[in-house]
Amino acid sequence: MSSTNLPNVPASGAPDASTPTHWVLTLSCPDGPGIVHAVAGTLAEHGGNITESQQFGDPLSGLFFMRVQVESTASRDELETALAPVIEAFDMTWNLDVVGRRVRTLVMVSKAAHCLVDLLYRERSQGMPIEVVGVVGNHRDLEDIAAFYGKPFHHVPVTRDTKAAAEDRLRELVAELDVELVVLARYMQILSDDLCRDLSGQVINIHHSFLPSFKGARPYAQAHDRGVKLIGATSHYVTGDLDEGPIIEQDVERVDHSRAVEDLVALGEDVERRTLARAVRWHAEHRVLLDGHRTIVFR
Amino acid sequence: MSSTNLPNVPASGAPDASTPTHWVLTLSCPDGPGIVHAVAGTLAEHGGNITESQQFGDPLSGLFFMRVQVESTASRDELETALAPVIEAFDMTWNLDVVGRRVRTLVMVSKAAHCLVDLLYRERSQGMPIEVVGVVGNHRDLEDIAAFYGKPFHHVPVTRDTKAAAEDRLRELVAELDVELVVLARYMQILSDDLCRDLSGQVINIHHSFLPSFKGARPYAQAHDRGVKLIGATSHYVTGDLDEGPIIEQDVERVDHSRAVEDLVALGEDVERRTLARAVRWHAEHRVLLDGHRTIVFR
Amino acid sequence: MSSTNLPNVPASGAPDASTPTHWVLTLSCPDGPGIVHAVAGTLAEHGGNITESQQFGDPLSGLFFMRVQVESTASRDELETALAPVIEAFDMTWNLDVVGRRVRTLVMVSKAAHCLVDLLYRERSQGMPIEVVGVVGNHRDLEDIAAFYGKPFHHVPVTRDTKAAAEDRLRELVAELDVELVVLARYMQILSDDLCRDLSGQVINIHHSFLPSFKGARPYAQAHDRGVKLIGATSHYVTGDLDEGPIIEQDVERVDHSRAVEDLVALGEDVERRTLARAVRWHAEHRVLLDGHRTIVFR
Amino acid sequence: MSSTNLPNVPASGAPDASTPTHWVLTLSCPDGPGIVHAVAGTLAEHGGNITESQQFGDPLSGLFFMRVQVESTASRDELETALAPVIEAFDMTWNLDVVGRRVRTLVMVSKAAHCLVDLLYRERSQGMPIEVVGVVGNHRDLEDIAAFYGKPFHHVPVTRDTKAAAEDRLRELVAELDVELVVLARYMQILSDDLCRDLSGQVINIHHSFLPSFKGARPYAQAHDRGVKLIGATSHYVTGDLDEGPIIEQDVERVDHSRAVEDLVALGEDVERRTLARAVRWHAEHRVLLDGHRTIVFR
Repeated sequence: MSSTNLPNVPASGAPDASTPTHWVLTLSCPDGPGIVHAVAGTLAEHGGNITESQQFGDPLSGLFFMRVQVESTASRDELETALAPVIEAFDMTWNLDVVGRRVRTLVMVSKAAHCLVDLLYRERSQGMPIEVVGVVGNHRDLEDIAAFYGKPFHHVPVTRDTKAAAEDRLRELVAELDVELVVLARYMQILSDDLCRDLSGQVINIHHSFLPSFKGARPYAQAHDRGVKLIGATSHYVTGDLDEGPIIEQDVERVDHSRAVEDLVALGEDVERRTLARAVRWHAEHRVLLDGHRTIVFR
Repeated sequence: MSSTNLPNVPASGAPDASTPTHWVLTLSCPDGPGIVHAVAGTLAEHGGNITESQQFGDPLSGLFFMRVQVESTASRDELETALAPVIEAFDMTWNLDVVGRRVRTLVMVSKAAHCLVDLLYRERSQGMPIEVVGVVGNHRDLEDIAAFYGKPFHHVPVTRDTKAAAEDRLRELVAELDVELVVLARYMQILSDDLCRDLSGQVINIHHSFLPSFKGARPYAQAHDRGVKLIGATSHYVTGDLDEGPIIEQDVERVDHSRAVEDLVALGEDVERRTLARAVRWHAEHRVLLDGHRTIVFR
Repeated sequence: MSSTNLPNVPASGAPDASTPTHWVLTLSCPDGPGIVHAVAGTLAEHGGNITESQQFGDPLSGLFFMRVQVESTASRDELETALAPVIEAFDMTWNLDVVGRRVRTLVMVSKAAHCLVDLLYRERSQGMPIEVVGVVGNHRDLEDIAAFYGKPFHHVPVTRDTKAAAEDRLRELVAELDVELVVLARYMQILSDDLCRDLSGQVINIHHSFLPSFKGARPYAQAHDRGVKLIGATSHYVTGDLDEGPIIEQDVERVDHSRAVEDLVALGEDVERRTLARAVRWHAEHRVLLDGHRTIVFR
Repeated sequence: MSSTNLPNVPASGAPDASTPTHWVLTLSCPDGPGIVHAVAGTLAEHGGNITESQQFGDPLSGLFFMRVQVESTASRDELETALAPVIEAFDMTWNLDVVGRRVRTLVMVSKAAHCLVDLLYRERSQGMPIEVVGVVGNHRDLEDIAAFYGKPFHHVPVTRDTKAAAEDRLRELVAELDVELVVLARYMQILSDDLCRDLSGQVINIHHSFLPSFKGARPYAQAHDRGVKLIGATSHYVTGDLDEGPIIEQDVERVDHSRAVEDLVALGEDVERRTLARAVRWHAEHRVLLDGHRTIVFR
C-alpha cells in the first residue's frame, strides 16, 4: 500500500513542460516561526501560483499543519528537490500529490448495500476522486452491485478459523492492486491489531453513533428503548480499537417516538452513507491530517 | 407539588358558562379497542370541539397514549365526572388542564447564566406557558438576572454537610410556592434518590452530550482532545441516576478542529439552552408522556 | 390512475377472515364536534384495534384532518358500508388502504441519476412502500440503471413539436400500468396545465431551493455568486405552476465560500434525493393530506 | 467610523516590548504567485509566530484572500512599515488588529428584544469580542434591557418627516462614540442609500428567510399559508438595497403544519438571534472578507 503521508507516493499525474500541474502539498511539523514563509518561498521560486491554502497551529499539541494547492510547471522531482531542505529543517511529515488524482480504493462490505451503492454512484457521477479498484465481501450479497458498476468482486469469507487466511488475502489484494485507501463500508468484521497498525491512516470506517452510546448487541433496539431523538454516524480512521480512531466526520438525523426499530435502521443508513461519503472525499482530497487522536480537516 | 399525571390537579383556569374553555386532556392506558371512541364520545356528549388530537400505540410496551385539545363549555367537575367511567374502564393515567395555563416553575441554577436568561426571556416575550415562581441558586451569581425579571431569588448553598438541609429547603419551597415543575438549568448538583423519586416526572435537567460520550471531569476538554465534529445536548426527566432519565429532546451543533475548548463551551451553551427550552415548553404544554424509559412527544 | 383521495381505490391487500388486516384510513372534512367519536366508534364496532392515530384541526381553513391505522378482521366492503353514514354526515373526503401496500409508481427522469438511483435502492432495500412499475426518460441516459433494478424503461423524447404526443404517451402509460403516483425525479420538463389538473395530488416534484431564491438559468451559479451559506431542496405536489404546489418536505445542506459551482451541484443532489425520498415515503404511507395550499404531514 | 478594511485603523491594543502581541492581519489582492511568501517572510523577519492562517484564491473573481494570526513583539509601527512594500507591490486591501480587541459596536433596535438580549448576553458572558457602546431605539421598549447591561440607550424616533434628522443623529453617534460596527438587531427601518454607502462593510443586518421567499407584508403568515417546512434567517452586510448585501451566515429551523403563525415567529426569533450572533462574532474576529457580492468566511 502506498503511503499518503510519506514522500514516496508515486505520481500518477505527470507534469508537462508547457502546461502547469495542479499540486496539493500537505505537511505537519512542530510549530515555530518561518514555516509558511519557507514553504511559500520554495513554491514561489518554482513559479507556483497558490490557489488554496490553509494552516492551523494546534496550541495544545504544539504541531503545525498546512495544506496548499499550487499550480506549477515544475516536475515532481524538481519540487521534491526544492522542498527537501525545508522538510529537513522543520522535521516535516509531508505528502505531495496531484489535485483530483483518483485514490486507488478497496471497499470492504458484508451484506448491507447502502454505503457501497453510494460510493460507487459518487465515483461515477459526482467526481469523487477515488478509483474503486475492487470490492471485497465476506458474503456474496453485493456482487451484483459491484458488477453493475464494473468493479471486480472478491469473495473472502471470514470464520473464526479462516480469519488469519482472510487477512492474508486482504494484504495480497492491497499489494496487488496498489491500494491506497481501504473503506470499511459496513464490513462488520474487526480487523486484527497488526493489520490496523500496518494500514494506519489508510483505513476509514463508518459506524452509527447515539447519545448516549449503547454497548452490546442490537444498538438500534437499545436506542429505540431509550427513546433517543437523534441518531448519528461517525466516520473515523481505524486504529487497533475498532471504534476509537481519530474522528473525520459526524452527522445526525432527527427521529421521534413513532419510529419503529426498522425505521431507525433505515434513517441510520442515510446518515451513515452521507457521513462516510464526506470522510472519503476529504481524505481523497488530502484535506484530513492527523494531530494525535484528532483530525485537522481543511474543508 | 401538584402532579401532572394524576387526576387531582387543581384547575387554575375556571370555565365560564357562556364562553368555552380550551381544555387539554392527556392519558395513557393499556392498548385495546375502543379507547379513542370512548374518550371522543364522552367529549362529544359535552359539546366539545376537538381542535388538536394525537394518539400513539406502542407495540412494544403495549401502552396507548393520547393527547387531545377540546373546546367545551363544560366545567372541570362536569368533565371529570363524565370521564370517570372511561378512566375506570381502561385503567387510565390521565391529566386535565387548561391550554396555555402557566405551569408554576422553580428554576435551579449555579453560576452559568445561559439557560436561566433564556427561560426568563421566553416566559416574558415568547409566551412560553410557564410562570417562574422562584429561582434557587447554590451561588449568588445570578441573583441580578432574577431581579431584572422580577423573580424572587433563594440562595441555598450546598456543601457536603448541608446537602440534606438544602434539600429540605427545596422541598419547603416546592410546597410553599405550589411548584409543579423544577428545571435544573445547569444546577450542577446531584439530587438525592429520595428527592428524585418524590418529584418523579416533574424535574427536567439539561446536559451536554457527545459522540462518543466522555466520562469524568472536563468533558469539553476530552471532546476537544478527540476532535469531535458535533457537540450536543440532551434534556431529560430526572430519575435516581442523574443523566439517565427519559429523554425529552436532543440537538447538536457542528464544530471543527479550529475551535478551542472555550469555543466548544460557548457553542455548548447555545445548544443546551435551546434544547432545554424545547423540553420545558413541550412539558408545559402537556405534550410529553412517559412510556417506560421513553417519552412520547406529541409536538 | 387510481385516486388516493376518493373512495373507489381498489384494494390490493384483501382481508382474510381469520387474521386481521392492518388498515390505514385518512380523511378530511369541515371541523366540528363528534368526528373522532363517530369514526372511532365505527371502527370499534368492527373489532378494530387502533395502532396509530393523528388528528389536526386547522383553525384557519376550518378543516379537520385525521389519519388512523387500525387492525381489523372486517373486509373492505364491511368497513366501507359501516363508514358510509359517517362520511355522508360529515361530508368527508376519505381514503382507505392497507398499511404497507406498495403504491404503483412511475418515475420520470431526464439525465440526472441521483434521485432515480436513490428511489430504486430504497424500494429494494429499505422497504419504501412503492412499486416502481416503469421509468420514463426523455433521454436514454438512465436506461441501464432501470435495467439493473429490473424496471421497464420507456423512452419518450420531448421536443417542442412532440410535447403533446409525449403527454399522450404518458397518459397511456398511467392508464396501462394502473399508476397511482408519478414522481418527477429531476425530469426537467414542465407538464401541461391540463395534465397537472388531471393528476392533481398524484404528482410529486423535487427542486433545489435557495435563500434568496434565484430566477432564470444556472441557479447554482447565481447562488455561488451571491455566496449563499445554505443550499436546499423542496419536494411538492405539482399543480399548474411547476414550482408552486403544496410543499411536502424541505431540507438544506451547509456550504461555504470554498465550494465551486460543481461542488454545490453535488451537495444539491444529496439534499434533493433525501428530500424527495421522504416526500415519496410519506405520500405512499398516506401521511400527507391536502389543506388548500398547505400539506398536513402526519409523520 | 474606523474602517476595518483600510490601513488607517487606530491600534487599540499597544504592543509591549517584552511580551508578544497577538496580531490578526487580513488582506485581499489580485491573485498571483508569491503573495503568501512575501507576507509570511515579512512576518518571519519580525519574529512572528503564525498561530492560525487561512488563504483562498477565488478563480472566478481572480482575487486572493488571507487571514493570518501572528504573535510578535514588533509594534504596530514596525509591522506597518515592514508590510508597506508588500502591500504596495501586490495592491493589497488590508487590516491589522489585535486578536480579541473588542470592536466598538452600536446596536440599533425597534421593539423586538431577542437579538439585543442575545448580543448583550454574549458580550458579557461568552467573550464575544464586541463592546456595545450604545443602543439606539426608535421606540423606548428595550430601554430597560440596555440599562440592565449598563448600556446607554438613545431614543431616536423615526417618522417620515424626521427620517433625515434621525440619520444625522445616527451619524453623530457613530462619530462621537468612535463606532466601528453597526448591528441592525431587528431595527425594522431602512437606512438611506447614502448612509449605507458611507458605512459600507460596517453594518450587519438580520432578516428571516423562507423557501420560497415571500414578498410583502406579514411574511410569517404567508409562510404559514404555504405550509413551509423550514424557516430560516440570513445575516448580511447592508448595501443600498436592504436585504441584498453580501451574505455572512444563514441557518434554518424545522417546523410542521401544527405550528400557528405565532409559533413560527417564536422559532424565527431563535434562528435569527443565533444567525446574527455568528455573523457578528466572525466579523469582530476579522474572519469575514468581501469578494464582490460574496463573503469569504475564514471560520
